[in-house]
Amino acid sequence: MIAHILSTGDEVLLGDIIDTNSGFLCQGLKEMGIEVQKIMAVGDDVEAIANVIEEISHTADICLVTGGLGPTRDDLTALACSRAAGKKLELNQKALASMQSYFAIRGFVLNKDNEKQALLPETSRVLINHNGTAPGFYMKINNCLFFFMPGVPSEMKIMFEREIKPVLADEFSLNDDILIERLTVFGLPESRVGSLLNEFKTKFPRMRLGFRADFPVIEVKIILMDSDKDNKKARSDIAKAKQWAIEQLENKVVSRQGLSIAQKIGRLLTKEKKTLAIAESCTGGLISNMVTDVAGSSDYFLFSGITYSNDAKINILNVQEKTIVEYGAVHEKTALEMAQGARLKAGADFAISTTGIAGPGGGTKEKPVGMVCIGLAGPSVLMARTYKFSYGDRLRNKKMFAMMALELLRRHLVSVFKAA
Amino acid sequence: MIAHILSTGDEVLLGDIIDTNSGFLCQGLKEMGIEVQKIMAVGDDVEAIANVIEEISHTADICLVTGGLGPTRDDLTALACSRAAGKKLELNQKALASMQSYFAIRGFVLNKDNEKQALLPETSRVLINHNGTAPGFYMKINNCLFFFMPGVPSEMKIMFEREIKPVLADEFSLNDDILIERLTVFGLPESRVGSLLNEFKTKFPRMRLGFRADFPVIEVKIILMDSDKDNKKARSDIAKAKQWAIEQLENKVVSRQGLSIAQKIGRLLTKEKKTLAIAESCTGGLISNMVTDVAGSSDYFLFSGITYSNDAKINILNVQEKTIVEYGAVHEKTALEMAQGARLKAGADFAISTTGIAGPGGGTKEKPVGMVCIGLAGPSVLMARTYKFSYGDRLRNKKMFAMMALELLRRHLVSVFKAA
Repeated sequence: MIAHILSTGDEVLLGDIIDTNSGFLCQGLKEMGIEVQKIMAVGDDVEAIANVIEEISHTADICLVTGGLGPTRDDLTALACSRAAGKKLELNQKALASMQSYFAIRGFVLNKDNEKQALLPETSRVLINHNGTAPGFYMKINNCLFFFMPGVPSEMKIMFEREIKPVLADEFSLNDDILIERLTVFGLPESRVGSLLNEFKTKFPRMRLGFRADFPVIEVKIILMDSDKDNKKARSDIAKAKQWAIEQLENKVVSRQGLSIAQKIGRLLTKEKKTLAIAESCTGGLISNMVTDVAGSSDYFLFSGITYSNDAKINILNVQEKTIVEYGAVHEKTALEMAQGARLKAGADFAISTTGIAGPGGGTKEKPVGMVCIGLAGPSVLMARTYKFSYGDRLRNKKMFAMMALELLRRHLVSVFKAA
Repeated sequence: MIAHILSTGDEVLLGDIIDTNSGFLCQGLKEMGIEVQKIMAVGDDVEAIANVIEEISHTADICLVTGGLGPTRDDLTALACSRAAGKKLELNQKALASMQSYFAIRGFVLNKDNEKQALLPETSRVLINHNGTAPGFYMKINNCLFFFMPGVPSEMKIMFEREIKPVLADEFSLNDDILIERLTVFGLPESRVGSLLNEFKTKFPRMRLGFRADFPVIEVKIILMDSDKDNKKARSDIAKAKQWAIEQLENKVVSRQGLSIAQKIGRLLTKEKKTLAIAESCTGGLISNMVTDVAGSSDYFLFSGITYSNDAKINILNVQEKTIVEYGAVHEKTALEMAQGARLKAGADFAISTTGIAGPGGGTKEKPVGMVCIGLAGPSVLMARTYKFSYGDRLRNKKMFAMMALELLRRHLVSVFKAA
């Protein structure tokens, strides 16, 4: 099956926005077993759009189109589609009704500009927009089934999930009952993850793998197609594949549910009713920000002291002045005292700390840019570790330092809670 | 002039990575006065790549191609190009020499796998890779001048800037001496920024505008083409256009040099040798993280207290217990005491604070999700403001709260330092 993706809109061609829709749709189709052969982007030009649609209609079986369904003059996709298909535009009553109900729920009245959005090519069928006003539609042109969606990602995504997937499953006898397992991997480069799982295809021919890298973390998806979700065999098969993948990945799987490390820590602390404090120097608030990005973090996160100055380390976290004088701010002993200080100050069960050199300046031969000391304090632990990274980039260093600190904490929590 | 962009590689079509190269290249071409009509992406398939190149060679004048120049079996672009052009691959001595010197500097010896990368189509000309091993190349096929670059963004970007721009300027008699001015706008939606600058084209026909939205900030670029950089007239013209744009933008320009608000605050504090402390509740470390993303922030940033728990607000920032009991944690009075507490604790000149409800839980009728109280303390100021946003999304709320706090501080610093 040949699938293409087309995005329309000047913003992408001017470089003003990055097209993230196409990547989302490629992944979505891949999870249904459909691989995309070509992605295209053209501007808000009715002739250019019509030409591309015409061209695709002779070569592809499926084409997902995003953008150009709004109320303004720039929104030309329905018109371009009608030209390419040789069909007239007509007021689609179902589209109009769906827009009226979307407006009515919000206490608005439809105006004339919006009505334009219900002008769709004859023979096209409506796709409901659950998250906005512009209805989508789908229709066959020559050999190809085209789906037209809005360009706003939040509107496009829900339309694809709820409206398009069932149509695709139906039209192409695909099974949209898919089992997916997600693993979060930290501590391996992407190429290494790929090569460790090299045998997957041979061992589990019914399944496929997907990867998504978000520095420094990689999400591995295991996808089982053509399976009824209630099927016990399918569930046991994918569980086996998951277990195999975890074993290959050298103990670097930080979540078996695709959670971030901060989410995983949140679950562990919530379950055991324990609390967390943080002391940051070189990470400058990034760890706290990652921890508090998790909804519900106020249940376990109490306090973080971002102590950039030595005075703040001494006055607020009770680091001893002589520790800093003797060993310096970037030292395991300082990291230890920071973690313990934050823990006691906040009355928390656990605390982590970072002190290091994010760069670009401030490095020396003994303490180069990229070096970090991480402290960990808890009822049964008081330890520090030193790491050196060579990204040579302030923001990457901060990110890596923060992730290492969270990972040390996660490993400790897993081991103490298991022992308990 | 018709320009196309083609990216090759399975990763993009599988949705594993987002193609950010094309956006960069669209912007780069736009700044030279070349608008892109079409972007395409195809997989690592020699026939598919050759077909697209052949097709483009009849329709476009320029095509920038990324990806597929590496040493592995998947890297097929040179081969596809040679097929589309009907030219043989041959060992290009200049490409080989550039690779040898890249390796020699790093103390490595070239191996056979790498040599493959120097096999380029006859008649093609080499583009030096300043940041990696794979050389690029360019050649004319039918009507179109093709430029082939590696897919790794750091390698591609420098090749475009240093190698391709001069060739383009030369071949198409473009002037690559461009003046660019950047404005950072905060507090207006993108559509409003566009409509406020609607008259720009008429008033300044020699210049063009570019926009880049990075929620909640918009960067506006003013680009003056075809000008010699030493030309006084051009500099005075673009200064006039910049001044006009600033006046239209309703006092919402936070930097006239395209700096972020945190960078701007950093410059102001560094110049006046003043220091900063922060007290965060609902923003959970995001403000501190933004402030410390700026290199050199250790010169002025002393301490931040992320006080999620009431105890931490009381014990660490000296917020009065009765304030929290009487008014609650989310209140201007609490925000004031947090800011003043952080300022005094750290011995800083200025401090900002946030306390609010990022959601998704924790909202009430009086204090809904999206409400934030921001405090500001300094030698001549002690004030708080309340804002309500309705993004309904925890991360967007955090971002908006943090930006509002920084913007309040920036405005205050500008006014006191100007008065001084």
